[in-house]
Amino acid sequence: MLNIGIVGGTGYTGVELLRLLALHADAKLKVITSRKEAGSSVADMFPNLRGKIDLRFSEVNDPALAKCDVVFFATPNGVAMQEAPRLLKAGVRVIDLSADYRLKDSKTWEKWYGMTHASPEIIAQAVYGLPEVNREKINDAQLVANPGCYPTAVQLGFLPLIENQVVDAEHLIADAKSGVSGGGRKAEVGFLFSEAADNFKAYGVAGHRHLPEITQGLNGVTTQSIGLTFVPHLTPLIRGIHATLYARLTKEVDLQRLYEKRYADELFVDVMPPGSHPETRSVRGANVCRISVFRPQAGDTVVVLCVIDNLVKGAAGQAIQNMNIMFGINESAGINIVPLLP
Amino acid sequence: MLNIGIVGGTGYTGVELLRLLALHADAKLKVITSRKEAGSSVADMFPNLRGKIDLRFSEVNDPALAKCDVVFFATPNGVAMQEAPRLLKAGVRVIDLSADYRLKDSKTWEKWYGMTHASPEIIAQAVYGLPEVNREKINDAQLVANPGCYPTAVQLGFLPLIENQVVDAEHLIADAKSGVSGGGRKAEVGFLFSEAADNFKAYGVAGHRHLPEITQGLNGVTTQSIGLTFVPHLTPLIRGIHATLYARLTKEVDLQRLYEKRYADELFVDVMPPGSHPETRSVRGANVCRISVFRPQAGDTVVVLCVIDNLVKGAAGQAIQNMNIMFGINESAGINIVPLLP
Amino acid sequence: MLNIGIVGGTGYTGVELLRLLALHADAKLKVITSRKEAGSSVADMFPNLRGKIDLRFSEVNDPALAKCDVVFFATPNGVAMQEAPRLLKAGVRVIDLSADYRLKDSKTWEKWYGMTHASPEIIAQAVYGLPEVNREKINDAQLVANPGCYPTAVQLGFLPLIENQVVDAEHLIADAKSGVSGGGRKAEVGFLFSEAADNFKAYGVAGHRHLPEITQGLNGVTTQSIGLTFVPHLTPLIRGIHATLYARLTKEVDLQRLYEKRYADELFVDVMPPGSHPETRSVRGANVCRISVFRPQAGDTVVVLCVIDNLVKGAAGQAIQNMNIMFGINESAGINIVPLLP
Amino acid sequence: MLNIGIVGGTGYTGVELLRLLALHADAKLKVITSRKEAGSSVADMFPNLRGKIDLRFSEVNDPALAKCDVVFFATPNGVAMQEAPRLLKAGVRVIDLSADYRLKDSKTWEKWYGMTHASPEIIAQAVYGLPEVNREKINDAQLVANPGCYPTAVQLGFLPLIENQVVDAEHLIADAKSGVSGGGRKAEVGFLFSEAADNFKAYGVAGHRHLPEITQGLNGVTTQSIGLTFVPHLTPLIRGIHATLYARLTKEVDLQRLYEKRYADELFVDVMPPGSHPETRSVRGANVCRISVFRPQAGDTVVVLCVIDNLVKGAAGQAIQNMNIMFGINESAGINIVPLLP
Repeated sequence: MLNIGIVGGTGYTGVELLRLLALHADAKLKVITSRKEAGSSVADMFPNLRGKIDLRFSEVNDPALAKCDVVFFATPNGVAMQEAPRLLKAGVRVIDLSADYRLKDSKTWEKWYGMTHASPEIIAQAVYGLPEVNREKINDAQLVANPGCYPTAVQLGFLPLIENQVVDAEHLIADAKSGVSGGGRKAEVGFLFSEAADNFKAYGVAGHRHLPEITQGLNGVTTQSIGLTFVPHLTPLIRGIHATLYARLTKEVDLQRLYEKRYADELFVDVMPPGSHPETRSVRGANVCRISVFRPQAGDTVVVLCVIDNLVKGAAGQAIQNMNIMFGINESAGINIVPLLP
Repeated sequence: MLNIGIVGGTGYTGVELLRLLALHADAKLKVITSRKEAGSSVADMFPNLRGKIDLRFSEVNDPALAKCDVVFFATPNGVAMQEAPRLLKAGVRVIDLSADYRLKDSKTWEKWYGMTHASPEIIAQAVYGLPEVNREKINDAQLVANPGCYPTAVQLGFLPLIENQVVDAEHLIADAKSGVSGGGRKAEVGFLFSEAADNFKAYGVAGHRHLPEITQGLNGVTTQSIGLTFVPHLTPLIRGIHATLYARLTKEVDLQRLYEKRYADELFVDVMPPGSHPETRSVRGANVCRISVFRPQAGDTVVVLCVIDNLVKGAAGQAIQNMNIMFGINESAGINIVPLLP
Repeated sequence: MLNIGIVGGTGYTGVELLRLLALHADAKLKVITSRKEAGSSVADMFPNLRGKIDLRFSEVNDPALAKCDVVFFATPNGVAMQEAPRLLKAGVRVIDLSADYRLKDSKTWEKWYGMTHASPEIIAQAVYGLPEVNREKINDAQLVANPGCYPTAVQLGFLPLIENQVVDAEHLIADAKSGVSGGGRKAEVGFLFSEAADNFKAYGVAGHRHLPEITQGLNGVTTQSIGLTFVPHLTPLIRGIHATLYARLTKEVDLQRLYEKRYADELFVDVMPPGSHPETRSVRGANVCRISVFRPQAGDTVVVLCVIDNLVKGAAGQAIQNMNIMFGINESAGINIVPLLP
Repeated sequence: MLNIGIVGGTGYTGVELLRLLALHADAKLKVITSRKEAGSSVADMFPNLRGKIDLRFSEVNDPALAKCDVVFFATPNGVAMQEAPRLLKAGVRVIDLSADYRLKDSKTWEKWYGMTHASPEIIAQAVYGLPEVNREKINDAQLVANPGCYPTAVQLGFLPLIENQVVDAEHLIADAKSGVSGGGRKAEVGFLFSEAADNFKAYGVAGHRHLPEITQGLNGVTTQSIGLTFVPHLTPLIRGIHATLYARLTKEVDLQRLYEKRYADELFVDVMPPGSHPETRSVRGANVCRISVFRPQAGDTVVVLCVIDNLVKGAAGQAIQNMNIMFGINESAGINIVPLLP
């Protein structure tokens, strides 16, 4: 039985970790901290947890964290980089759901995230937690940088094309659509129901923080140079990311077979039959990525459709998948869920 | 291990049964029939079930049904009354999620449902499957009439008041709001996204089929005569019922205590702390009913707020709860779920 | 041509005033103030106004306000009570969309709104701007207190019953449902898309500020004493209020005729045919209230269904209706709109 | 005053025509036909029209149509091609909102629409009703083929690039997202609220009917050969299309200036300031297309964002714009509307 700590459990990735861990047979939640909510009951804030989680939020530096086997950071960017080092020194394994340790180059990180990195010396030891690429390294990792939601969907969608060098890697296009929970549980006007409902818009077209993360990830699996145009959109869903990916073919290849082969052994990537259009609701609440691949009008443009639940395979579910791998537990423990449809 | 059959699994209660049974440790789904979809794969129709349910729909009269321990009818009204008798004779236990066996008086049933009842002789043996009222009878039942969604919420909300005779039972008001999935997976203009989204309306104010079901249920627990004004509304949710109940107090009573005591031993009814406002999302995907009770301005009008997921505690989840009771399994087997929030 | 000023135009009632005034043939928008946005372009904040409104927000105390014929306050509660007196002295007519002058008893106001009233001496001269009750007084008013959204719907729904003393006025029930824009354009977690979408809940059951406003209004049209249980709910609409009203009949009366007669000359109240269920979308964007009345099962409980767009007949549209009445313009000028459906 | 007829007014483009024409100062609606609803009141079907439109639906071949100045076909594909010729012979001008006369090559039309064209001989005389390209021809036209919703957005977005030959025209990508009303007011399971809400998916990736329409339109303004990958998506909006367009630059050009210049004289195309992200709600209910253009990371990929209301600029509003042009009325008569936000 693993003893679990969570730092910063009041956002959407936090409540999602709680939902999944509450029924994980090998995990025991010992402590959850919150700067603002210390002392209050977790179930008072998240009524879905009534009767399932009895804990109260504790103070930020609760010493109980250092006694855990693993601590999840479900904090805003800039917190884990300050608090994780102490836990790592205490021998705790850390899974950071924020962006603090995702980018290998601290200068790039500082440019995109607008702050000085507090612990650049440990970036190198962080393993990027995309199991479909780094499963073995994750197994040994003490610090896992859990991928962003868009980067998970976009990388899983592009990987077979890039690893096999069958497309023009310098002109990739990712047209990605996210549900509003991707923006977090923050009181911002732009995420109000009356602003975001019955509305659709792009944002960050000039540049988005997930661009360097995706580029770094894809560069890691090929000798080609990656060029990516990444356009995120806000769509009136609570949960879900749909990435529509475009690339120019440079070689003849059986695309369906390429994808099926690449993910044949992956529990949480589902390559759908030819002609399928994966829907975001088909993964709602579950740790799965569904993909289909097209070559419209038999031209040289490949279209890949890729869906995940941004809070599960795009955040908390993948974090638990990483935990399972780190501790040699069955990889699907606690995340063997049937998506909620309708 | 129970062998399970489902008749008519292409609607929302059908897919919900499948979602829940897929991970039920004591249940093995053997056969699922569909008039229209015989031969096609269940997971092709409901992509959330890919990798979880391997079955194909079989013909309506598949003889495999008669070999099951229990068969669920997730059919439109009017089917179970024709097909259930044959299975009952074969010794199969039946849980009917439709309305066919809910009303004890076949004439009343025929008036509200607009058809002649095909098997009125077995109505008497059907047990109304509201565990919080009929748990012992359900345990012995061969045929369970699973309650409607509105009747589940409204009865659970009124029960403590009616059983204890503390209100004017002849002037009850139930102002109920349902998500659109309550209308089923039928191609009707009124349930189109463009009609039902960003819209709110009452319907059936002059009379709704769930009125006699609720009245019968409440009459069953009191010697008083029940009079109910029932106003259902369609609200742009996928899942969820919120019943707001009004009654006039006739006796002084500690309402909070009355409710807490009534449901103290009920696993799936959660009486919330005073002043709480239960939200439909706090029960999304889960077999739980949350209730709070108010006495505004200390007047003589009691207000009860009551939420369920219409497809779970209001349909498939309650059906499985009934199955668990019938077969002496742990009552929460397969339905120990944390609601999905956000 | 009327010269118009708006104080505080950055909320939803503000942008709605702008939408309607932009095409009002007799109105010229001269000045709009905003504490936070002074200097910035109105159309930058509300892109729907691009090409329609050229103004920039000006400072709060812009002297141009005093030169207007009429000034609308679209401010949070507590602002108009401080700033309106100065404009009134300057001879400007004022329409206050906030709650500052709605309650005649300043002590009651202070209790519900939690602040000391800054100008209690002018409450008496304020006319409550419900044209269907106070049209003549509005015509002469210098200061109009524009009704709240719930109070508009609930009063219009109850008026025929109360004025004619045909129900038990001490036990009225108003079960009201509002779209999320009723909560304003404020960054609050509870109004986030991910919190409010696919969710339904009651709030303020123990007591809501609109209760004394409704009670005062209904007490004003009868000698009976009004008792009201008011339960507001938040529903995942952007716009719209649906009030479901319940009352116990004390006299035999032709309800349909009572309502049709009461509103026969009202341009903006539509009594629908017997058996109708008004939908919120049937009034979306328009200054109309649609009503239908039922007597289910021929019992003694009357059910009234009443819908408005909370931002139009419940706020900005009614404010313009009041302006038209005050200045003797055609009452429907600028608000002769066909609701947007779907 | 123009006498107007509408054939087939029970779908969403029909009710939208009615909404707009009800307040058009120069138009008088004389007749509206419906196969199924003949005899019933228009306002009974569309309650937003109560008090605005008094007409009843008449029989399909109502002779009054032939006496109109202009008849709109708001029918499913395949109707206008049979009924329009008769009206044209009678001297009536026809605006067809269906696809029947959009494609110049009848064989291509028959392939994509799966039927034999009933009046291929008059396709040549039909003018494609995109005013920003064909204003002069529309002025003289007797038969206008009103563009599809996607084709309107995609062509307006690409036109400046294609007309000026600054991109690789053979590898255009249009990633388009549509609200559900684009699917029409048809009882289909896929458009049910419970299927389409809180869900996002692509469809028709292998081929969509609007592809040849867009290609034909763009081929018409350049000597280059057009190659387009068109991926439509269904998004949980009622109204709105957001087209995200991608093209590879082949020449250095000031993109912002190119777009501003192209649309400088267009009343209904709004080129937004650099860095803007147009939102679908900023055009809700209005006949306007808003566009912004980006060149992310200063690379050679152009990104164009383009929004319209699919029922207005993408259907009924553009049809009225065409009518205004045909009859020499002020082009914005009846469609000078402020979008509804929020």
